[in-house]
Amino acid sequence: MLFRQLFDSESSTYTYLIADEITKAAVLVDPVWEQVDRDLQLITELGLDLKYCLETHIHADHITGTGKLREITGCLGIVPTKASATCADKYMQDRERLEAGEIIIQAIATPGHTDSHIAYLINNDKLLTGDSLLIRGCGRTDFQSGNAGIQYESITEKLFTLPDTTLVYPGHDYKGFTVSTIGEEIQHNPRFKNQNKTTFIEMMNNLNLPNPKKMMAAVPANQKCGNK
Amino acid sequence: MLFRQLFDSESSTYTYLIADEITKAAVLVDPVWEQVDRDLQLITELGLDLKYCLETHIHADHITGTGKLREITGCLGIVPTKASATCADKYMQDRERLEAGEIIIQAIATPGHTDSHIAYLINNDKLLTGDSLLIRGCGRTDFQSGNAGIQYESITEKLFTLPDTTLVYPGHDYKGFTVSTIGEEIQHNPRFKNQNKTTFIEMMNNLNLPNPKKMMAAVPANQKCGNK
Repeated sequence: MLFRQLFDSESSTYTYLIADEITKAAVLVDPVWEQVDRDLQLITELGLDLKYCLETHIHADHITGTGKLREITGCLGIVPTKASATCADKYMQDRERLEAGEIIIQAIATPGHTDSHIAYLINNDKLLTGDSLLIRGCGRTDFQSGNAGIQYESITEKLFTLPDTTLVYPGHDYKGFTVSTIGEEIQHNPRFKNQNKTTFIEMMNNLNLPNPKKMMAAVPANQKCGNK
Repeated sequence: MLFRQLFDSESSTYTYLIADEITKAAVLVDPVWEQVDRDLQLITELGLDLKYCLETHIHADHITGTGKLREITGCLGIVPTKASATCADKYMQDRERLEAGEIIIQAIATPGHTDSHIAYLINNDKLLTGDSLLIRGCGRTDFQSGNAGIQYESITEKLFTLPDTTLVYPGHDYKGFTVSTIGEEIQHNPRFKNQNKTTFIEMMNNLNLPNPKKMMAAVPANQKCGNK
């Protein structure tokens, strides 16, 4: 399997390119509008056939590259079921599996950051967590249908029950981390270590973060799959 | 083997943490001064025993974290032989091997960006290229003992003769790439594809890049292993 983590420094977003090296079937998870040329060039150079663009959720901090990529390559745009994006070609349900060659992508509904957020487990060992679990952190829950209590349940009951060795690949990182493991996050993530649901909710409700700069443009654009 | 790629967004530098998961012996390659707290916390959380801090070269764009890390952990600071840094505990020669538990690190002298630059091959499949080969690029050669012709020879004769599947982990990236392979760089790196030594030298001599902002402070500090 080809697996590439790609970074957008403006929004600190990670995009993931995953491909079956035999059939060349490829999937992009959380592509970024400004990075479409980079991603397309890489896909072309590697001789890949882009089948799907997946979103973990409707992003508030950047505009998805899916609309442009779909127009150019004919790939399908896939969003979580319940996401308010009528533009998608397919909607992923909790526990639904998507295949691309030998690659199996399993959806794990992880609401909390948004009410329709999904994490994707790749071939049972790489977990793309989007804005649910981050490395030593987690996605905010204070806007756009977010809910701290539900985030706590999604992460502790659904992600922290995966094997300890599962690799954690987040949707963002702001400190320069690229990967972690479930075991490591259970032990060392300060948002969950020595916290219970009540203290977690209190902590999340007191973060007082500013809204993302691009939020007013990004959310409506992403509800249209990135077609501005 | 534990292998972690860490990013410093200010200088776009990659630091690599490599550890034997049995003995916990760990090595940091190209640590950054401003990220020492982050790196130490990660090393502590993972229960690792930092044995060595390795430099690929005397950096001009950031100050190494080696001095601080050595002071705190007692690790050894290692620089390439011929590097003008009298502060080091050990000097690596071309083809010399360093062991940390089951991890074998082989030095490959790759002068060009500086005259003493070394790339490190980890367990025969991961190549930490420093500022020699970058993803779809290469390190500049216009200051600090750099030489374009020698860079061309180092990359085409020493790195491009490694197996195509060798993973390329660079010392910097400015476009959001995290990893490539030797085969991919031979095929798609515009600095080398359809170039010969003469055209490469001409291209490198006409880049007209500004000097790194921190150069006047970084070079002398790095010659003292990061002790400002």
